[in-house]
Amino acid sequence: MDDIARRQNLDRLDSLATVLDLIRTGRVHSKPEIARETGFGRTVVSMRVSELMDSGLIVEDGLAQSSGGRAPRRLSFSESRALLLVAELGATSISVGVATLTGEIIASRREPSAIADGPDVVLTRVETLFDDLVAANPGEYGEIWGIGIGVPGPVEYRSGRPVSPPIMPGWDAYPIRERLESRYGAPVWVDNDVNLMALGEHRAGIADGADNLVFVKIGSGIGAGLISNGRLQRGDQGVAGDVGHIEIEADSSVLCRCGNYGCAEAIAGGSALLQRAREHLAGGGSISGYDGTAASVTLDDLASASQRGDRFARDLFDGSARSVGRLLATLVNIQNPSLVVLGGAVAGSSDSYLAIVKEVVFGRSTALATRDLTIAMSRPSADIALRGAAQMIIEQLFSRDELGHWIDSHSPRALIATAV
Amino acid sequence: MDDIARRQNLDRLDSLATVLDLIRTGRVHSKPEIARETGFGRTVVSMRVSELMDSGLIVEDGLAQSSGGRAPRRLSFSESRALLLVAELGATSISVGVATLTGEIIASRREPSAIADGPDVVLTRVETLFDDLVAANPGEYGEIWGIGIGVPGPVEYRSGRPVSPPIMPGWDAYPIRERLESRYGAPVWVDNDVNLMALGEHRAGIADGADNLVFVKIGSGIGAGLISNGRLQRGDQGVAGDVGHIEIEADSSVLCRCGNYGCAEAIAGGSALLQRAREHLAGGGSISGYDGTAASVTLDDLASASQRGDRFARDLFDGSARSVGRLLATLVNIQNPSLVVLGGAVAGSSDSYLAIVKEVVFGRSTALATRDLTIAMSRPSADIALRGAAQMIIEQLFSRDELGHWIDSHSPRALIATAV
Repeated sequence: MDDIARRQNLDRLDSLATVLDLIRTGRVHSKPEIARETGFGRTVVSMRVSELMDSGLIVEDGLAQSSGGRAPRRLSFSESRALLLVAELGATSISVGVATLTGEIIASRREPSAIADGPDVVLTRVETLFDDLVAANPGEYGEIWGIGIGVPGPVEYRSGRPVSPPIMPGWDAYPIRERLESRYGAPVWVDNDVNLMALGEHRAGIADGADNLVFVKIGSGIGAGLISNGRLQRGDQGVAGDVGHIEIEADSSVLCRCGNYGCAEAIAGGSALLQRAREHLAGGGSISGYDGTAASVTLDDLASASQRGDRFARDLFDGSARSVGRLLATLVNIQNPSLVVLGGAVAGSSDSYLAIVKEVVFGRSTALATRDLTIAMSRPSADIALRGAAQMIIEQLFSRDELGHWIDSHSPRALIATAV
Repeated sequence: MDDIARRQNLDRLDSLATVLDLIRTGRVHSKPEIARETGFGRTVVSMRVSELMDSGLIVEDGLAQSSGGRAPRRLSFSESRALLLVAELGATSISVGVATLTGEIIASRREPSAIADGPDVVLTRVETLFDDLVAANPGEYGEIWGIGIGVPGPVEYRSGRPVSPPIMPGWDAYPIRERLESRYGAPVWVDNDVNLMALGEHRAGIADGADNLVFVKIGSGIGAGLISNGRLQRGDQGVAGDVGHIEIEADSSVLCRCGNYGCAEAIAGGSALLQRAREHLAGGGSISGYDGTAASVTLDDLASASQRGDRFARDLFDGSARSVGRLLATLVNIQNPSLVVLGGAVAGSSDSYLAIVKEVVFGRSTALATRDLTIAMSRPSADIALRGAAQMIIEQLFSRDELGHWIDSHSPRALIATAV
C-alpha cells in the first residue's frame, strides 16, 4: 500500500471507529443521525454502515424516529455478535465469566482454587470452566472475540506475563497470553487484579464520572489500582499502585515476606491478621464463637467474631483500618483523587472499618486534597474485577487499530498477531 | 455555522494542526514532504501552507532537498514570530524570561522577592521585568502570544488561581490570569512551580523519553510534580504531588505549619533545617565558618559548613536525605517511574545528599519498581521551571482548538476568551 492509500485507509478506519462508537454507546440510532452528528456525507455514512453490517457488528432492527418524512431504519449494536471470556485468579479462588460486547457479565462461576498450585493446574481449570460457560451460553454466533485475565500479582502489560509475582509460585514470566490465544484463537490481555477492579469501578461501577480514582483492595495482601485523567496508571514496569510494601511504621519489628520491615501489608493485610489470630489461639486465647484449631481459623471466623463484639477480633480489624487510613492519607495527598473505593475481605469485615479509614484520612490528608473527596466501599457481591476485565478487552478491541484488522478480515483471528 | 460546515472546519483545523506540527518540530521541510507524510492531496497541502504563511507561523527560507526535478521551497517555523513571557515566583525570589515559540529561553532575570509581600507588589515587579525584557528583545514582530506563571503553592489549573496556598498570604484565589491578560492581551496559564519543573525536565530537560517521571523539589518546603504516561498528573483539585504533608514519622512531636505532626516538610524541608540551626546557634552551638547571628543564618551558610565537614550541618542534611529517601520509596512504589529528578536548594546542598537518597530508595522500594529506575539531580543552573512554563504555553497554544481561533483571527487576542 502506498502512502496515500495508507492515509486514505486510516481515514476510513477513523470514520468506521467513529460510527461504531456512536452506535455502540447508544448515542445515535439511524443513518440521518450519524450524518448529523459527524458531518460525514450520505455516501460515506452508507458505506461505513454497510461495512459494519457486513461484519455483523451492527444490525437493523425496526424503525428509528423520523425527523420528517419516512422513518429511517433503526441501527443497533450487536452486543451478542460474539462473546468475551473473563477470569479473575485470586489467591484462593477463581472467578470466570462470559460477557457481551458491551461488557455485561451474562454468566459467571466462582470456586476455590489455590494460585500456588501453579499455572498448569489453575489455567486447565479455567479453560474447563470457560468451555462449560461457552457451551451453556453460545450467543448468536458462538465466536469468542477476546479474553481478559486478572492475576494477583505484578504483570508486564505489553507481554501479558507475570513479573516476579510474590504469591504466585511457578507463574513468573508464564506465557498466559500465548497459551490461551492458541487454544481459543482470540486475543488475550492480562493485568493485575486490582487494576481491573479500578477499571471496573471506573467504567461500569460506582465511579459516576470520577476520572481520578483510587481502588484499594485489602484482602490477604494490599494493593491499589490508580485511574488518573480517566486512564489506568500502570507506571514504567506495570507496578504502579503496588502499595502493599510501603513502610507505614518506621523502626518496626514486623518483618514482611518481601524482606523489609513495617510494610503496610505485613501490618494491616489479611494474612498478617490471621497470623496474629493463630498466635492468640495457640497461646491459649479465645475468639468468640470459634471452637476450631489455631491453624484453621479464617478471616470469615474473625469477621463473625468481630460482628458479635469479640474484643480481640475487633481490635485486629480496627487496627488494620487505622493503618490503612494512614496509607490512604499518603495516597490521597499524592494522587488527589475525587473517589477512593475500598474492596477486599478485610475492608468488608466490619461495619466500623470504613468509618475508621475515613476518620484517619480526613484528619491526616491536606484540606485541599480532601475538599471534594468521597471514600466508599465497593459492592461486595459485584463481580467488579470481571467487569473490569471485559472493559479492558473492549477498550482494546474497538480501538481504531484493532478494528481495522477485524473489519478487513471478518475474523477475530487476525487480531492475534497484533495484540499488544 | 451548520453541522456539516462545522465538521468541515474541524477537519480543516485538524489538517492545519497536523501540518504546523510537522514543520514546527522539524520533521518535514517542504510541501512534497508534507504530502508524503500526511497523504493529503497537493491542493489541500498548498491551502494549509498558505494559511500558515499568511498567519506568519511559517516562512519560506531557501530551497529544500529535491527528490528529483526542481528543488521545492524550504519551509521553516517562525520561532521568533512572537514571544512568550514566563515567570517563576519562588518563596524568596522571582525569575522571569522571554522564550521563542519553540520554548527556548532567550533572556532571563532573577532577583530576590518575597512572595509574602502579596500579589500586587510581586506582580507589579514581574510586569516591570517583563516590560524590560520585551523592550530589549522585541523579536521579529514584537507580539506576545502567551504567558506562563509558576507559583509556590496549589493552583486550580482551570481558573489559574492559587487555592489556599500556605506560604502565599494574600494570594488565595487572586486572579493572576485576568490581571496579566488585560495588561498584555495574551492568554495566561498558571500552575504550581514544581509541576512546571516536572514538565520542563520531561519536554526540555534530562528526561530523554522517560514518560513516567517524578520531580521532587526539596527547598524551603517539599513538593513533587508527577508525569504519568507522558502527561502531567494534576488530580481532581490540581494538588496531586503535594507530598510535603505526607506523614513520614508516626507519633512524631514535630508540629508542621499545616497543623499535623510528622509531615515530610516539617522534618526534612529547608525551613525546618534552618529552624534547627537557629536553635543550635541560639543555644550556644557553633557552625563552622559562620559568625553571624542565629536569626540570620541561611541554607547557603549551612551548605558551606557541610562542605567544610561541619558535623552539625552535615547531620542536618544527611538526616533530611534519609527522610526524603523514605518519602521517595513510597512515591516510587505508588508511581513506578523510570526517572526521579531531585531539585531545590536542600537537595543541592551536599555531595552526599543524592547518594543517601538512592541508598534508602533502593533498599526500601520493591525490587520490581526499582529495576530500571534512575535517580538524578536536576542541573542547578538550568531555568527548568521557566522552560516548563514555556512548554505549558506551547502545549496549549498549538492545540487544535486554540490554533483555530488564532488562524481565523490572525491575532492572539482571540485566544483570551477561550483560554482554559
